[in-house]
Amino acid sequence: MMIIKIGGGKSLNLPAITVEVARLWQQGQRLIVVHGAGWTRDKVAAQLGVKVRLITSPSGIESVFSDKDLMRVFLMTYAGLVNKQITALLIGQGVKAVGLTGVDGLLWQAKRQAVLYDKQRSKTKLVTGNYAGRVVKVNAKLINLLMDQGYLPVITAPAVTPQGEIVNTDNDTAIAAMAKVLPVTTIVSLFEAPGFLADPDNPESLIKQIDKDKLPDLLPMAKGRMKKKVLGAIKAFEYGVKRIYWGDGRVKQPISSLFQGAGSVIE
Amino acid sequence: MMIIKIGGGKSLNLPAITVEVARLWQQGQRLIVVHGAGWTRDKVAAQLGVKVRLITSPSGIESVFSDKDLMRVFLMTYAGLVNKQITALLIGQGVKAVGLTGVDGLLWQAKRQAVLYDKQRSKTKLVTGNYAGRVVKVNAKLINLLMDQGYLPVITAPAVTPQGEIVNTDNDTAIAAMAKVLPVTTIVSLFEAPGFLADPDNPESLIKQIDKDKLPDLLPMAKGRMKKKVLGAIKAFEYGVKRIYWGDGRVKQPISSLFQGAGSVIE
Repeated sequence: MMIIKIGGGKSLNLPAITVEVARLWQQGQRLIVVHGAGWTRDKVAAQLGVKVRLITSPSGIESVFSDKDLMRVFLMTYAGLVNKQITALLIGQGVKAVGLTGVDGLLWQAKRQAVLYDKQRSKTKLVTGNYAGRVVKVNAKLINLLMDQGYLPVITAPAVTPQGEIVNTDNDTAIAAMAKVLPVTTIVSLFEAPGFLADPDNPESLIKQIDKDKLPDLLPMAKGRMKKKVLGAIKAFEYGVKRIYWGDGRVKQPISSLFQGAGSVIE
Repeated sequence: MMIIKIGGGKSLNLPAITVEVARLWQQGQRLIVVHGAGWTRDKVAAQLGVKVRLITSPSGIESVFSDKDLMRVFLMTYAGLVNKQITALLIGQGVKAVGLTGVDGLLWQAKRQAVLYDKQRSKTKLVTGNYAGRVVKVNAKLINLLMDQGYLPVITAPAVTPQGEIVNTDNDTAIAAMAKVLPVTTIVSLFEAPGFLADPDNPESLIKQIDKDKLPDLLPMAKGRMKKKVLGAIKAFEYGVKRIYWGDGRVKQPISSLFQGAGSVIE
């Protein structure tokens, strides 16, 4: 089984990506699409006057602070706009795609972390009212049920608690949680860079081959969201994933070019 | 099988409605929830500066003109905000609800009507660029697949063409299309009025019992969205539905009070 992760950047080539996803699916590859919508979220938040506030955990991981207003924007953009856009593109390619969030059928059951630490320069502050959490249980049955009947699941955050609280969650961690309970061997992650860059500002610094045991060594070089991708990848290998591709989602053949050696391969 | 239609008005009591839906489901009633989001759509459209333009068909039916901008708002509010809100409320009640749009798995396959007539006072104009259409095929297999495994489908517009065009569609007509291919015997429709009012401005004018064969007689009295409900009901009876309840979704026990005789019953 393969998971294809489509980032939420502005310039991702969704038509090209979905054409290649459809081809893999029609060749019999069992796969799940997981996607982000970060750029769309920030754009709609700005239009609605909702502030997107970043917080930094004591270990240096940056995330968006998910208050109630932002969660509304989150649902509008992840669950609404982008999920249905990708699903419809796949339908147009003849694939019976079904768009879901982690809420649906308790697909991604989360434990809410209402209180967070935010590290700002020299001091660390306690922040409350956070609607985000960690995926603690994946409904693998629902995914298999759909896939066995020929439906391709297109999944995105948010997740949900058993009490019905909708909570933001990190897609890369959720992907690792899915790898734990599903026979996922390969993850393809598409974003707005040619792969893992030793220097994020220099596209020439692409690292093509990465040993999975050396992933922790990448953490000091990884900036922003890339840190989460590295942490998610470490977890995914623990849960039995054999190979992860990181590459450019803006090009004409985003997936097949990765299989032909563009981008980074972690094994 | 029962369809419960939750209107998109501002004052619908979603917590109370979902508590009663959950109880019916847990008692073994097979059911589908279909919902609107009209009030939320108009509010978000106003916040984003998107104009909601009403057009009137030559036969006097009012609809929203669905251009590209409005379709984005449509996805944000129907597929995003409200669909996941209702789904999460049901999850909180212990129901494995799965929120879907007509796009997902080609659930509501539509034929797009790109060109419309708009009747304004004395003249009728041709309007192009409409992203709306009529549901021509329902994926009953997907609904049964989910329901057989204990998942309650929570469905909303939009629909989709086989080419992957996302199109707005009327929920009441889509409900009739579902009744055609599924063994639906009962429809419960909840909105912001005590039932069918002979005079829309007078809550005392509630008609409690309506003969299904007399539905066309209600058309001249029906205003705005109520016209569509009457037309949808006529179709639903043609397709084998036995009983339709129309009633108030703002009260404490919206569904059980209808079963006890509040509201309008059409048989």
